[in-house]
Amino acid sequence: MKIESLQNSKVKEWIKLKEKKYRDLNNLFLIEGDHLLNEAMIKGVVREIISTDKLFDFEGIPFYEVNDSIMKKMSNQVSGTNVICVCEKLREREIIGNVCLLDNIQDPGNLGTIIRSAVAFNIDTIIVSPDTVDLYNDKTIRSSEGMLFHINVIKQNLEDAIDSLKNKDYKIYGTNVENGLDLKETSFGNKGAVIIGNEGNGVKKALQDKCDSLIYIPISSTCESLNAGIAASIIFYEMN
Amino acid sequence: MKIESLQNSKVKEWIKLKEKKYRDLNNLFLIEGDHLLNEAMIKGVVREIISTDKLFDFEGIPFYEVNDSIMKKMSNQVSGTNVICVCEKLREREIIGNVCLLDNIQDPGNLGTIIRSAVAFNIDTIIVSPDTVDLYNDKTIRSSEGMLFHINVIKQNLEDAIDSLKNKDYKIYGTNVENGLDLKETSFGNKGAVIIGNEGNGVKKALQDKCDSLIYIPISSTCESLNAGIAASIIFYEMN
Repeated sequence: MKIESLQNSKVKEWIKLKEKKYRDLNNLFLIEGDHLLNEAMIKGVVREIISTDKLFDFEGIPFYEVNDSIMKKMSNQVSGTNVICVCEKLREREIIGNVCLLDNIQDPGNLGTIIRSAVAFNIDTIIVSPDTVDLYNDKTIRSSEGMLFHINVIKQNLEDAIDSLKNKDYKIYGTNVENGLDLKETSFGNKGAVIIGNEGNGVKKALQDKCDSLIYIPISSTCESLNAGIAASIIFYEMN
Repeated sequence: MKIESLQNSKVKEWIKLKEKKYRDLNNLFLIEGDHLLNEAMIKGVVREIISTDKLFDFEGIPFYEVNDSIMKKMSNQVSGTNVICVCEKLREREIIGNVCLLDNIQDPGNLGTIIRSAVAFNIDTIIVSPDTVDLYNDKTIRSSEGMLFHINVIKQNLEDAIDSLKNKDYKIYGTNVENGLDLKETSFGNKGAVIIGNEGNGVKKALQDKCDSLIYIPISSTCESLNAGIAASIIFYEMN
């Protein structure tokens, strides 16, 4: 039966998931569009499918047909979408290969781009500080191009994370725009962990102090810094 | 004298500059904030300064004090700004070093990021196809972090641009996700020109056919492609 009212209790629950508070409370998040739906299906995390079309038939997963105004209210995209899914948040797993730590990344587009590049360059795990922007922000999901389903993301205090990585024989690389080894001269082993800092302030001093090496990407003096997503991606490219 | 009305003819002119059509017609564009104002002053392209504060005193440049509601209407930023300037569009100049050609880049954030990385990695000139997003779009300017004032941007049909670059002994590199030389194996001379393609479709076939070499960045098969700004930046990093 088609849902027609914005006052429907299901609709109200779904709309709440646009806010981080409710995503955290319910351990759920929303995705939009066919491409992400396919990625989420492969991962087995789809709980409910909502669409303006009747076409969907995914065995065992509850399907809800809704009208255009409900879809418009639920969507974060200007151009709208024809399908939205409620998904379970992704499980954290053991770390096996190269790692990236994110220290207070604030821009959801940067986080999504970092995830996309991390998968491209075979980074196994991203450890995000608790003050990093939400992984399940719609802009993060969109700019990850679905790659968030293909990487292990762990939320943890970075000082603790560094200690446990060191116990597993990881070498920790900090980034610093002024000091350190030229990235082109750096050779990474097969257990490297690189810390990418906040867009305005870089990597916190307390974390830099815990690093085995500091690295930098040489750039023209005309340009103050690289975008955080760009810097991260160039380092991943060199680590790969 | 403070301007208080949104109906003021000056205010109406300024607001029109938020649209590409009027920027093109008047050869002017708007920038927001102190940081961009400083960069534009160095470049000598500031025509008018508009602010809610009385503080500004820049010799010879007309200054207009306005109220908060005018400033809010003019600003493209959610958090607002205290200063907006009308600037002359930047002049195109002769090409001297490494070059990047942009084939139909559509995302203003990507264009801005490409400009920022290009300056960082000493690319001299960016040639944009006529169907690339406007250089003077507020999001492009913002994500360039003011670096658009430090690079030569030329708008030109890319087939013509390639012909004239070849006449100047440039080597033309296309990007292609499937075929071509591994970027890590590519050695660029000091007159290299690289073409970055549209976000969805890559570099047009007709342009690829005119290239001396095609290059690609090796990535995991899990990830379909890199973000265009990321791909461009990694190539600039290797060309530098």
